[in-house]
Amino acid sequence: MPINIQDFKDIDPGERLLLGAGPCNVAPRVFRAVAAPSIGYLDPYLFKIMDETQELLRALFRTENAVTLPMSATGGGGMETAFVNLLEPGDQVVVGVNGLFGTRMCDIAERLGCEVVRVDVEWGRAVPAERMEAALKGKSPKIVAVVNAETSTGACTPLKDIGKLAHDHGAMFLADTVTSLAGIDVSIDADGVDVAYSGTQKCISAFPGISLVSFGPAAIKALEARTTKVPNWYLDMTMIREYWGPARKYHHTPAINMIYGLREALRLVFEEGLEARFARHMLNHKALVAGLEAMGLSMLVPAGERLPMLNAVRIAEGADDAKTRGTLLREYGIEISGGLGELGGKVWRIGLMGYNAQPKNVLLLLAALQAVLKGQGVKVGAGAIEAAAAVWAG
Amino acid sequence: MPINIQDFKDIDPGERLLLGAGPCNVAPRVFRAVAAPSIGYLDPYLFKIMDETQELLRALFRTENAVTLPMSATGGGGMETAFVNLLEPGDQVVVGVNGLFGTRMCDIAERLGCEVVRVDVEWGRAVPAERMEAALKGKSPKIVAVVNAETSTGACTPLKDIGKLAHDHGAMFLADTVTSLAGIDVSIDADGVDVAYSGTQKCISAFPGISLVSFGPAAIKALEARTTKVPNWYLDMTMIREYWGPARKYHHTPAINMIYGLREALRLVFEEGLEARFARHMLNHKALVAGLEAMGLSMLVPAGERLPMLNAVRIAEGADDAKTRGTLLREYGIEISGGLGELGGKVWRIGLMGYNAQPKNVLLLLAALQAVLKGQGVKVGAGAIEAAAAVWAG
Repeated sequence: MPINIQDFKDIDPGERLLLGAGPCNVAPRVFRAVAAPSIGYLDPYLFKIMDETQELLRALFRTENAVTLPMSATGGGGMETAFVNLLEPGDQVVVGVNGLFGTRMCDIAERLGCEVVRVDVEWGRAVPAERMEAALKGKSPKIVAVVNAETSTGACTPLKDIGKLAHDHGAMFLADTVTSLAGIDVSIDADGVDVAYSGTQKCISAFPGISLVSFGPAAIKALEARTTKVPNWYLDMTMIREYWGPARKYHHTPAINMIYGLREALRLVFEEGLEARFARHMLNHKALVAGLEAMGLSMLVPAGERLPMLNAVRIAEGADDAKTRGTLLREYGIEISGGLGELGGKVWRIGLMGYNAQPKNVLLLLAALQAVLKGQGVKVGAGAIEAAAAVWAG
Repeated sequence: MPINIQDFKDIDPGERLLLGAGPCNVAPRVFRAVAAPSIGYLDPYLFKIMDETQELLRALFRTENAVTLPMSATGGGGMETAFVNLLEPGDQVVVGVNGLFGTRMCDIAERLGCEVVRVDVEWGRAVPAERMEAALKGKSPKIVAVVNAETSTGACTPLKDIGKLAHDHGAMFLADTVTSLAGIDVSIDADGVDVAYSGTQKCISAFPGISLVSFGPAAIKALEARTTKVPNWYLDMTMIREYWGPARKYHHTPAINMIYGLREALRLVFEEGLEARFARHMLNHKALVAGLEAMGLSMLVPAGERLPMLNAVRIAEGADDAKTRGTLLREYGIEISGGLGELGGKVWRIGLMGYNAQPKNVLLLLAALQAVLKGQGVKVGAGAIEAAAAVWAG
């Protein structure tokens, strides 16, 4: 069919407030950084930008790992990178599964011909170290893996105790920090994480399209001890680290302008300061929860296990899931996410990530949700705005 | 080490004229499109943009293939996508190898546990159909693969005859069109290509970071007939096509703003028109070659086998390879590429891709190269500018 190019209009998405599970809104400075002129993949200026980006990433992961870098693939590609570089067919992996992303870890490890031991936990709860300990009894797997921040449920699984268990059983410890990084403390060296990955479009508030990985000494040793080539040329860390390290050996043309944007987003993170950033996420989370609870809604995750940046709230009784989200998007330009997998139709997922973790966004979401639910004839408790304001007032 | 964020300055790469092997310069309108607000991965507006992008891509590949879409990975990831989805361990692949990217195809297929039959051809030459025919005698491989435009050498291998040979031997035909697409005619349906991939940062002149793939009916049939899951979750086309097709099933968050940019670059392609674009590439290529030859330099690839967008020229006698490229970059802001692999130190690779295939760039490159070589005491023939101008004058 011939193209009539006049039918293809100027891009014009309009304004969105992205309060779903990600991507979230990108800070204006990141847009400007991405628009800096492209340069070649062997340009000395790019090498400087790459080095600085790695330095900032190490500070963010709180690690000394030399191999800490952005991959030219989204968060799911970060997960694939961690597994495909370290596993060989027949290896055993123990995975804590408390949501969609733990399930995906199992899928990836199985595709690589590995034996997967699943530790299934109720969706919406953290993975208890005791459950991992029980599963590890008598085993010596190659990798023990958990998701730090389960984006599908909003549950936070602490890393330190599970990291110790992994090492006690001679395993490497792998942590998914896609949604946690830059929103809560992620200290991979202190917590014994041997390999971690993360995204750019959650609490870092850069564009989606690349991901972040960090390989510690044990992971590098395992990588170098492989008896087979990494069965994935594109994500092969034995080659990619040669480009990001002093050898500067060409592997593929990286997503150069996306790296500009990532670096700018990381500058914003460190201008604010990590502790201040974590506190901001926590405060706005508490205000949101106070508001939602005042409306009579209940959170999926018990108080002690909640993530601040991803809030799963049970769908209001009598509310229409799709209609509520559709009206929020069409009439107010606000995106929130529905449930995934077994939580489909049961929860809404409200993200307050990075740049978006601001009081004005909490207020608008509470007010708009209230209006939309009332429009559907759903009974909504009063005082949401006041409850949120009380949190900020201390 | 604590971060002193004041040490990390504003991004400021300065201006570059990217006349290497890619990435090339991005058209101003593409920068603006990328800076449009981010939206969610299930936003109806994004679905419209995705559909339009697919329609434009089909017109560019000249195909009816429904599964024609951008992957969230660079050109090398496009190559990986084509192979990993169609091959299973033990499958046989026949690969024409006339440069680095053919070599990479073999590497990828071997990592997937396949038997690779290499048809090695001198770097700098096209892959002759007769050589492929001889290699195919008595064989019935799963895939026959060639690189349409060898970025490492500048040689163009025509597709049609090799496509017919592949089908005569019951194989699928795979073509790498990373550097050719949008610069010369790429008609995958007419040429019998069953699976193709391409880049965005060559003749399309969008940002690096994503790639383009097209799977035809035979490839889809092979995908559906697999006896094992695709051993790569991230690039699994059985799932990715469910997101890009009517089911809109979530797989991963795509590189949303990069898709905006790709669509804008494709709009520019079709505003110009394919035939006009191909003619522009050819004319400026001829002018460049006339100028280089007037300077006494000789092209690596014989005249009938040359690509217009990637010009490999033998390094001038007495010239210092690295010094020449370094001086061009530092003093004139012009990037050209050195040789790769066995051509390292032997050729320069000069790209005239997409937005960059303009007379002013040809003139500046010829003039600057002349100045740099003369500065090294290299003897350079006169009349380069005049020779190029004569080509444009007809």
